Amino acid sequence: MTAGAGASGEDSLIARYFRPLATDPGAFGLGDDAAILTALGDDIVVTTDAVVEGVHFRPDDPPDTVARKALRVNLSDLAAKGATAAGFVLTLALRSADDAWLAPFARGLGSDAGLFGCPLLGGDTVATPGPLMISITAFGRVPPGKMVHRSGAKPGDRLAVTGTIGDAVLGLDILKGGAAAAVLGDDAAAKAMLAGRYLIPQPRSALAAAVRDHASAAMDVSDGLAGDLAKLCAASGVSAVIDAQSIPLSAPAATLLARGAVGIERIVSGGDDYEILCAIPENRFEAFAKAAALTGVAVTSIGTVIAGASAPKFLDAQGREMPLPRLSYSHF
Amino acid sequence: MTAGAGASGEDSLIARYFRPLATDPGAFGLGDDAAILTALGDDIVVTTDAVVEGVHFRPDDPPDTVARKALRVNLSDLAAKGATAAGFVLTLALRSADDAWLAPFARGLGSDAGLFGCPLLGGDTVATPGPLMISITAFGRVPPGKMVHRSGAKPGDRLAVTGTIGDAVLGLDILKGGAAAAVLGDDAAAKAMLAGRYLIPQPRSALAAAVRDHASAAMDVSDGLAGDLAKLCAASGVSAVIDAQSIPLSAPAATLLARGAVGIERIVSGGDDYEILCAIPENRFEAFAKAAALTGVAVTSIGTVIAGASAPKFLDAQGREMPLPRLSYSHF
Repeated sequence: MTAGAGASGEDSLIARYFRPLATDPGAFGLGDDAAILTALGDDIVVTTDAVVEGVHFRPDDPPDTVARKALRVNLSDLAAKGATAAGFVLTLALRSADDAWLAPFARGLGSDAGLFGCPLLGGDTVATPGPLMISITAFGRVPPGKMVHRSGAKPGDRLAVTGTIGDAVLGLDILKGGAAAAVLGDDAAAKAMLAGRYLIPQPRSALAAAVRDHASAAMDVSDGLAGDLAKLCAASGVSAVIDAQSIPLSAPAATLLARGAVGIERIVSGGDDYEILCAIPENRFEAFAKAAALTGVAVTSIGTVIAGASAPKFLDAQGREMPLPRLSYSHF
Repeated sequence: MTAGAGASGEDSLIARYFRPLATDPGAFGLGDDAAILTALGDDIVVTTDAVVEGVHFRPDDPPDTVARKALRVNLSDLAAKGATAAGFVLTLALRSADDAWLAPFARGLGSDAGLFGCPLLGGDTVATPGPLMISITAFGRVPPGKMVHRSGAKPGDRLAVTGTIGDAVLGLDILKGGAAAAVLGDDAAAKAMLAGRYLIPQPRSALAAAVRDHASAAMDVSDGLAGDLAKLCAASGVSAVIDAQSIPLSAPAATLLARGAVGIERIVSGGDDYEILCAIPENRFEAFAKAAALTGVAVTSIGTVIAGASAPKFLDAQGREMPLPRLSYSHF
């Protein structure tokens, strides 16, 4: 992504919408062919997530929320790895240079880049005859060797999640005019809250340091709690027992669950939560909870890591194992 | 891009095709949510280029060449900035998990990752209803502060390009069955050479150190020599005079030019060359040429940087300025 003197449509698009976001000196005002990322003695943590129109967002989603979600899903990964955001590069595939879409898109992106201290470093803008696509590669820093992996969980560790689980899948249902919308009736605030959780995830960046200091393993919950927990357990060579009753739910989600509008299996497999799932050694849990409290990010203990290679078990109020036919979202 | 225990189609696709390419320890075998890039005291150079089916490559281009081109256009940027390749992340948007396409794609990508010492560090694989798209963010290393910019050219510097210019646009014409194919008739070798230059660019990675040591400014020629030179001049606050006769052409391109099948303006504006354009202070040119000779990369002096803010001039054999109606390719 460079805005040179050629004054082509591509260049002026970049100069107009994206150069103002390139506030880091290493971005060279998007005027060169590459950016510089200085490591400052840290390890650079690299993560990539792409979103496609019609798959990850709906064609009529507001452009500013599309931009913010595209960046935030990457920031969520960085936070779960214990990394502090350092910058990102953007690939934007567009059908046309549509100012009415690009202006709010760039505004939303710039707003979040500022909010999370994660400046635009560079990118590429290409034409596509197909759906819009936004691919972001984000960078973070951790002290050498301190990235938090999926693979460090040990039997006896406490499993915790941030925030609440299941809101986004219910929010999408509401945006589609599904059953959840009907059950919530005229509770506009509840519907807006759930839809907002789908449209604009809340990366738990404030918790990165606490995760880095205390977690034995962590990942963000993007494809559904059940499936992502299974991945964390497999990477760590352990299993887990989850008390389904303790999974934190928002008030609207709890209402929908109580009224039978959604089952717990959908809550734990729906995905798009962008909360942090982490394993905390028992003797560090109190310190972790205290550190989390200082950041204002809610953390809830939902279960325990156990030895074994079987899939994690979700137990209901009677201690019975709940069947989970579908663990998580998969593209193929 | 993670290949976890969920054993979804997406995970098994990644495990099968892409994990073998993730040879760097910082990739964690694609088994985590992020990769680690160690700076080793260097600056990290970051570049991003995406290719879209039907725009940057044709739907029936061989999958291995699509993969190689997608990586090589990024390696070309790194080389022009004087950087040594360190790794890359891949975003792959697919209509379906088609083994007949994915197997050669991954093979080509792995082959070039090995050839250029640029391992896969991570990525994201997503479904799209639209055209295939490959977005690559590549990383290189330079000693601190040593990235070569577009902006350092000074009046009196020699302008040089690597390799030959214009082959790729002629190769595309041949692949489309255009005029060039007719003129070259049954000269299959010439046609294959030009088509190959379109399908598989040759990043001048071997020249990175010489560019870093000697160039005052550099960039890779991706959108056409004329337009990219204009960008380099604008970034440097200078102008340039080019002797069009000295622009290096391959034998087939020279034949096509001599027979009137292509004009020089198409040669210098066609793009997809992926050669390095650089400005070399006059007193360093001999040392640069010697260093280049040791790498086996041909470099040709094509003109001189001059003071001024006007567009670079291309002079014909009679010293007359040639009109260039279209400087380079633009998406919008």
